[in-house]
Amino acid sequence: MKPSIPKGTRDFSPAEMQRRNKIFDAIRKVFLFHGFQQIETPAMENLETLMGKYGEEGDKLIYKIRSNKDLRKKHPKLNDDYPYFIPEKSDKALRYDLTVPFARFVVMHQNEIAFPFRRFQIQPVWRADNPQRGRYREFYQCDADIIGSDSLLNEVELIQMIDEVFSELKLEVTINLNNRKVLYGIAEKLGMKERLIDFSIVIDKLEKIGFDKVVEEVKKEGLPVEMEAAFRNLFQDWNRRDSFDERKIQLREFLKDSEIGLTGLEELQFIFAAKELLMLSYMSTLEFDASLARGLNYYTGAIIEVKANSVQIGSVCGGGRYDDLTGIFGLPDVSGVGISFGVDRIYDVMEELKLFDALQTEQLSTQILFVNFGEKEEIHCLKLVTELRNKGIAAELYPDRDKIKKQMSYADSRKIPFVAFIGEEEMKSGKVKLKDMKTGEEYMKNFEQVAEHIRKK
Amino acid sequence: MKPSIPKGTRDFSPAEMQRRNKIFDAIRKVFLFHGFQQIETPAMENLETLMGKYGEEGDKLIYKIRSNKDLRKKHPKLNDDYPYFIPEKSDKALRYDLTVPFARFVVMHQNEIAFPFRRFQIQPVWRADNPQRGRYREFYQCDADIIGSDSLLNEVELIQMIDEVFSELKLEVTINLNNRKVLYGIAEKLGMKERLIDFSIVIDKLEKIGFDKVVEEVKKEGLPVEMEAAFRNLFQDWNRRDSFDERKIQLREFLKDSEIGLTGLEELQFIFAAKELLMLSYMSTLEFDASLARGLNYYTGAIIEVKANSVQIGSVCGGGRYDDLTGIFGLPDVSGVGISFGVDRIYDVMEELKLFDALQTEQLSTQILFVNFGEKEEIHCLKLVTELRNKGIAAELYPDRDKIKKQMSYADSRKIPFVAFIGEEEMKSGKVKLKDMKTGEEYMKNFEQVAEHIRKK
Repeated sequence: MKPSIPKGTRDFSPAEMQRRNKIFDAIRKVFLFHGFQQIETPAMENLETLMGKYGEEGDKLIYKIRSNKDLRKKHPKLNDDYPYFIPEKSDKALRYDLTVPFARFVVMHQNEIAFPFRRFQIQPVWRADNPQRGRYREFYQCDADIIGSDSLLNEVELIQMIDEVFSELKLEVTINLNNRKVLYGIAEKLGMKERLIDFSIVIDKLEKIGFDKVVEEVKKEGLPVEMEAAFRNLFQDWNRRDSFDERKIQLREFLKDSEIGLTGLEELQFIFAAKELLMLSYMSTLEFDASLARGLNYYTGAIIEVKANSVQIGSVCGGGRYDDLTGIFGLPDVSGVGISFGVDRIYDVMEELKLFDALQTEQLSTQILFVNFGEKEEIHCLKLVTELRNKGIAAELYPDRDKIKKQMSYADSRKIPFVAFIGEEEMKSGKVKLKDMKTGEEYMKNFEQVAEHIRKK
Repeated sequence: MKPSIPKGTRDFSPAEMQRRNKIFDAIRKVFLFHGFQQIETPAMENLETLMGKYGEEGDKLIYKIRSNKDLRKKHPKLNDDYPYFIPEKSDKALRYDLTVPFARFVVMHQNEIAFPFRRFQIQPVWRADNPQRGRYREFYQCDADIIGSDSLLNEVELIQMIDEVFSELKLEVTINLNNRKVLYGIAEKLGMKERLIDFSIVIDKLEKIGFDKVVEEVKKEGLPVEMEAAFRNLFQDWNRRDSFDERKIQLREFLKDSEIGLTGLEELQFIFAAKELLMLSYMSTLEFDASLARGLNYYTGAIIEVKANSVQIGSVCGGGRYDDLTGIFGLPDVSGVGISFGVDRIYDVMEELKLFDALQTEQLSTQILFVNFGEKEEIHCLKLVTELRNKGIAAELYPDRDKIKKQMSYADSRKIPFVAFIGEEEMKSGKVKLKDMKTGEEYMKNFEQVAEHIRKK
């Protein structure tokens, strides 16, 4: 039997884990620094907690878990009638994202929580999607949300945090910002407010299929003929990347009778005005994109999407404001806003741009390997290794009495910087022959000097 | 709808996460310090990778995942015949432990790995077990294994690591040690070697059901009448806790014609002799327990089990040597030895013994909260908060224009040590009114002094 793993899932090697941990550490550091508090929820939720929360398509992508109650006994004929079929009910499923479990958490623990609640959560999620580049069936989400506050200062802070994370990772990104209320206002003015969701889905495809096809599709969705010119005028240069201040003038005119649309514009105005105070690093640019909708129709205010500047792979971070996420679980009128980092995509982008080498590795690992020469020597070395460890030096004794060549190649592939040789003579003299694996140099040291020597290097 | 989570699973609040992270950090630190390298494997494995590896009972406890291929269409009559049944195949399952996925990993990646391979892995596992105290359906395992080496130095190092972890956590434990070969030798001499597994299972119950009942059970399993006296002699004072050196004399006599038994005794001898060199902390005691079997019949050499000294909750860590774990996946003759820490039980024990308070909290979190007085003030404070953050101080601005009382109670419940008040006057003067939340003291500071003041405290 040749072992394999399910399609769309991955093993992570030590080298990959070190790199992934750099990303997790950067995100966790920023979350903690901004006072977000970590929670964890179970991988398995009750099926009814998840079903119906992600639309019909989403429901199909939820991994259901078979109940371990064996119902077969009650229906002995089943196997004859339907071979291969599993006669069991299912009442649990793997979480599809971290947002719905978070909403469930807030409702269940509302009496223990001090609002506004800043929570973060870093856990894997599962989707029975078709695997492709940058899309996996098991992947991590790193979410930070502020719930129980409708102040726009929260949006401002989340944008700061996005900037800090990518600045820490030295990855250049564009933070695109929109507001669901502006989208609503535009749909309203175009005579399409009943079809807001479909309108948003079409608009969102601008980057993927281009302006001309979007015009066709939006006409199919019911754009009145007399509105086509207005639509073209708004979106033909959607990616012109001029500043919000310029766009604002055009939109304020267009949205002048739409109360909701104008509110959305004011909210954007607040965030872009605060941009000066944000002192964003040179790693990120904040831009307005009136076509940004992100498909998720639970967003009610800000919509945020972050893309890497030099790699085409979809978004590396996204988020927005939702006015009533916990309502479905019986706690209405709690407003929240959040962002979610996609570690797996960030990893792929950083790998492609070779950004990992530039980041410092500070991971604790073996500093010195003691070669194993045999029975007497290994007991002697065991003692020395323990002494070094007590001095805070990560030391390792090669466990087997293998050929020296094999032991050296182990040190090499593990990237251990020093190798110690202690034969009979060194045992007597209390000295150690050290090899510096980077330079290839070899020299003798008194054992007492070893810890200090390694620390210096 | 009142939300809930599946039986046997848990939400972790921020306070619980902080404590759990202390345990994870202690374990991770020791693993890294000893040169173990982290890997991760997918939560879902192919069903055939897991089935048949944990015995018949284990197979039943594996959570199977429904395929998302809908086979219903092919069998339209199914719903009428068998309502509530799920007409889908299952080819994936949630991992049951970290050992079998690790074996699968080693076989799949054998060409990229430098042996002996020291790997660690910290991930949740799932078991459809009956939940009870200390037993959950989702729980974390923290495993360290050395694979590709049959040196006993590995066992010695793993015992050192167990000691270091519990010493770091300030939890007093007893490390019980046995050897499968000794168990085999005893069974052989008692005329029960064909029934080694059943013999081990009975012996393992000594602590649970007591000596007299064990004698009864072992007789039922086929202990020859003439061997009862020998059996009683060996196990009646199994928990007398005398040293290995004393026990050794008795066992060497008893096992004198059993080659395997004597080999096991020599292996134990090597480890107990190295004990002097180990310099174990005063937090752990290493003891010999000839009755220790740990149920898992894949152990072939050392068997390790760690129990907390003052709380009865089962083992907090366990492990042993297995001579052929990867054979089932097509890579024979690779010997390994490993240990596994049970974070959830360690947590329960430390909670019961109130050990968390003694551990220092170093977690990064908000140091100062700026009270929100209104529109003008919040923009002013946003700038100051950003400046403080750039100086490395974790600062937070309360996002809403709520009553001061509510803002203060937020600071209180979040345990934020300083609160800053900046009203109209302070805006003009460049000063800040600070409140030290521990002492209740209030004083004025120039804004430039705030960062230094917080750092000093």
